[in-house]
Amino acid sequence: MASSANVIVVGKKSVNDYVLSAILLLNEGHDEVIIRGQGNNINKAVEVYNALRRRLGDSIELVSVSIDSFEKGRRLVPFIEIKVRRTI
Amino acid sequence: MASSANVIVVGKKSVNDYVLSAILLLNEGHDEVIIRGQGNNINKAVEVYNALRRRLGDSIELVSVSIDSFEKGRRLVPFIEIKVRRTI
Repeated sequence: MASSANVIVVGKKSVNDYVLSAILLLNEGHDEVIIRGQGNNINKAVEVYNALRRRLGDSIELVSVSIDSFEKGRRLVPFIEIKVRRTI
Repeated sequence: MASSANVIVVGKKSVNDYVLSAILLLNEGHDEVIIRGQGNNINKAVEVYNALRRRLGDSIELVSVSIDSFEKGRRLVPFIEIKVRRTI
């Protein structure tokens, strides 16, 4: 299981902000980073992954994409978790 | 490769509409169905998957989730493809 230290929760900030956060985590020595988006931010999480991919190219690889939902009060909120790994 | 016949492209209709489309495809004999969402519809595609999962339970399983982007004019549009398989 990943510690919360390497999870980036995508919210209202720009795609680039999250890309930079991911690069910082990788540079700090984390081998894996999880990009998580909930509800309306799921698509932004995918954009962050794609932008990170374009930026870092083959120095990262996609480990897994998991999708599920969690209960928030009476609602079910869908989420995505995109796990990437440093290859270098 | 999947034929386009079993791809459900999630758009402006309700989550339930797409869940019903998926159930129809499975009942017609397709063993696999791909739920595809682009741009702002990525989160809805995940909702469709979760709703389908709740409805059909263990009679379907998640095969893969792929995320990527494609060029549309000068923009890069992110998309998700969620592939599910009938287990019964």
